[in-house]
Amino acid sequence: MSAYRDFTQTHRDDLLAELSAFLEIPSVSTAPERREDTRRAALFLVEKLEPLGFQTQVFDTPGHAIVYAERRVSEGAPTVLIYGHYDVQPPEPLELWTTPPFEPTVRDSKLYARGASDDKGQIYAHIKGVEALLEGTGTLPVNVKFLIEGEEEIGSPNLVPFIEAHTDLLKTDIVLISDGAMAAPETPTITYGLKGLAYIEVHVRGAAMDLHSGAFGGGAPNPINGLAAMIAALHDDAGRVAVPGFYDAVIDITPEEREVFGRAPFDEQALAEELGVKALPGEAGYTVLERLWARPTLDCNGIGGGFQGEGSKTVIASEAMAKISCRLVPNQTPQEITRKLGDYLRSIVPEGLTVEVIDLHGGDGALTPLTSSAVQAAGRALEKVYGKETVFARTGGTIPVASTFQKTLGADVVFVGLGLESDRAHSPNEKFDLVNYYRGIEVSAALLEGFAKGM
Amino acid sequence: MSAYRDFTQTHRDDLLAELSAFLEIPSVSTAPERREDTRRAALFLVEKLEPLGFQTQVFDTPGHAIVYAERRVSEGAPTVLIYGHYDVQPPEPLELWTTPPFEPTVRDSKLYARGASDDKGQIYAHIKGVEALLEGTGTLPVNVKFLIEGEEEIGSPNLVPFIEAHTDLLKTDIVLISDGAMAAPETPTITYGLKGLAYIEVHVRGAAMDLHSGAFGGGAPNPINGLAAMIAALHDDAGRVAVPGFYDAVIDITPEEREVFGRAPFDEQALAEELGVKALPGEAGYTVLERLWARPTLDCNGIGGGFQGEGSKTVIASEAMAKISCRLVPNQTPQEITRKLGDYLRSIVPEGLTVEVIDLHGGDGALTPLTSSAVQAAGRALEKVYGKETVFARTGGTIPVASTFQKTLGADVVFVGLGLESDRAHSPNEKFDLVNYYRGIEVSAALLEGFAKGM
Repeated sequence: MSAYRDFTQTHRDDLLAELSAFLEIPSVSTAPERREDTRRAALFLVEKLEPLGFQTQVFDTPGHAIVYAERRVSEGAPTVLIYGHYDVQPPEPLELWTTPPFEPTVRDSKLYARGASDDKGQIYAHIKGVEALLEGTGTLPVNVKFLIEGEEEIGSPNLVPFIEAHTDLLKTDIVLISDGAMAAPETPTITYGLKGLAYIEVHVRGAAMDLHSGAFGGGAPNPINGLAAMIAALHDDAGRVAVPGFYDAVIDITPEEREVFGRAPFDEQALAEELGVKALPGEAGYTVLERLWARPTLDCNGIGGGFQGEGSKTVIASEAMAKISCRLVPNQTPQEITRKLGDYLRSIVPEGLTVEVIDLHGGDGALTPLTSSAVQAAGRALEKVYGKETVFARTGGTIPVASTFQKTLGADVVFVGLGLESDRAHSPNEKFDLVNYYRGIEVSAALLEGFAKGM
Repeated sequence: MSAYRDFTQTHRDDLLAELSAFLEIPSVSTAPERREDTRRAALFLVEKLEPLGFQTQVFDTPGHAIVYAERRVSEGAPTVLIYGHYDVQPPEPLELWTTPPFEPTVRDSKLYARGASDDKGQIYAHIKGVEALLEGTGTLPVNVKFLIEGEEEIGSPNLVPFIEAHTDLLKTDIVLISDGAMAAPETPTITYGLKGLAYIEVHVRGAAMDLHSGAFGGGAPNPINGLAAMIAALHDDAGRVAVPGFYDAVIDITPEEREVFGRAPFDEQALAEELGVKALPGEAGYTVLERLWARPTLDCNGIGGGFQGEGSKTVIASEAMAKISCRLVPNQTPQEITRKLGDYLRSIVPEGLTVEVIDLHGGDGALTPLTSSAVQAAGRALEKVYGKETVFARTGGTIPVASTFQKTLGADVVFVGLGLESDRAHSPNEKFDLVNYYRGIEVSAALLEGFAKGM
């Protein structure tokens, strides 16, 4: 049993009351009318961190404030920066909530409120984890910094510039992020890598005007057929991306990772059934999980052209458009892949058509080696709390700030999701299981202790 | 000079006044409030045909009436059925008309009004052509029937059933249709073939719900990528349609047709410039004109799936859709091609996806042999009127009733476009050049005389 179980059991009611007070603040970062409430959430954190011996600063930005706090214990000890966000998604549609989104309510041992899991509950578990350590030993095993922003739900527009402008202040060995889910309920999970993204829009153009397919079929170049042929040419028969040089910079999955992925609680058949499909196709030579977690992919996210209404219209469109994105793995960069993809598309445009490739946006992936001491220490800490083997995972999602932490601060980034996929983050009736809240507090304390020992 | 030039010159003002009176009637078949006006246009024709010795009947339909008229001259003479329509397109947007659409106005020797070219001016030229013959000889060289419907602009829903129910009444050797354009100004043109159409909608489906491309990229089947691959597989590298058996029933272009097409006033470079494209790609082994006029083609007319809005959304769509149509040549049938296309698409659907093929509609093509006496006689008749060589053309457009005339009545169908492509049929400021109106009257008389001699 965890050494911090006592703390969560003793303070059970207070812990719930404090988190509920945090959740009552409607810090919806997208809503101009919630600007004061959003600031109130930032100040709430300051009020909770200062009594724990943290020096705090509230940095104003062109958007919402960034809360920074630190408690140094020793020059020699490692430093852990815990990142999270105090803003929440809009709660609409309100009529789908069983109880109001900003009136936290416990039902069946789950706390229902907007932000309960994403991310107020998770960041608050870390603050209380620090308190558990202090109550036990009077000090902390590592230097701890908190960086809690208020713009995550609007794409963190001011965070990267802030980090780049404050590298000394934020200097750290490890960045710990809890803003997601564990692999399955009651499953200790360390995520040590995530994918990058390169997202483009492609316009293929033919004649200067829409044409009648009766009058011009067989003569006019057809942008839809042309675009389809170009998209088809983006993969080869083995499901590999056919863009020349696409895989050049890829760090392939290590033998250790293959083994670890093979033990993860993942069932291809169950996923196929959940999605309602007969197969989960992809790059040959890799399991589905390896592809989802650690291989670069290319997907069309949208396509449009010509007549899409009811019935038939005999038109040859002047233009067709596709949105295409690649999920990248280290060390692919969005710049490199966008350039290669654009060059390739321009090289295969069918006769009579022209193509325009627009770079919409991108983000770097991040990978802390599975064998790194930070990842391994985190894994052992979780095993102590849960009493079972930790799942080491990567994910196909992209959190651009993770790569900024790595590159700008030179830190190892470790993700510990304290919530569940079923928490309905971003949806009505968002919840956080109280067991995961209390367990999260223990996890936080154990991780900080583990990092002290393991580094 | 044409023998009928006297008639048009003598009656110049009356001919214009009569057509203007016809054009003043706003017979918009789509507009319920124009129902009485549309009937008035039908009765106008009856009033003009009866004094010319025609027996007329007005057949009511569930929609607008069909005007039928015949004047028999001899059992032994060939019969020519002239088809046209008295309904017109809606005139909107009204503000784009220089003069009101139902106030026919002559500017620069052109008569501006809705229906001036499509099709009131052309059908009325034929009525006056008959009058020219009668004024010259007191009789007609062939038996003449008129079949003039009021629903062409809404897809002729009642015409095919009417023809099929009145095969004895409509029995004829030749069907003469003037509802289009000559190849170029002052260019006598006989069109002897048109294409058919098979139009389908294809739905490709993957997972039961839209998915996050970060979480599922590399595992979930992507309907957009799959649909693109399927569309790409519809053509081979030589620009031929790759659907197995697609060309089985095709009547290929004859050596005579190749020669005749080669002489047509068609300039590939000019067309490319008009369309603003660098090439006019298509099936290898055929000229652009051969493809446009007489080779079957396949075009995507629309495509849609996933996110088409501004910016980026990292979604793997649950479904993608395409509209695909084939222009057919005799003896391909829409039924055969739709079946083969559907079978092929079902056979190439990528792993993990399903496909649904919906038959939207189709129509048969029509072809009266270039060497037939009807086509050759028509060509000679036009040469007499214009004093220059007739262009023999086919077209990529589809007029389903043409095949009904061929199949149900066993008639040769000949198209003589009296208007110009620049007449702005269906657009504001529709016009009919008066020279083409008067010339059309001469053409009609010459054709009827020519058919009498040539059959």
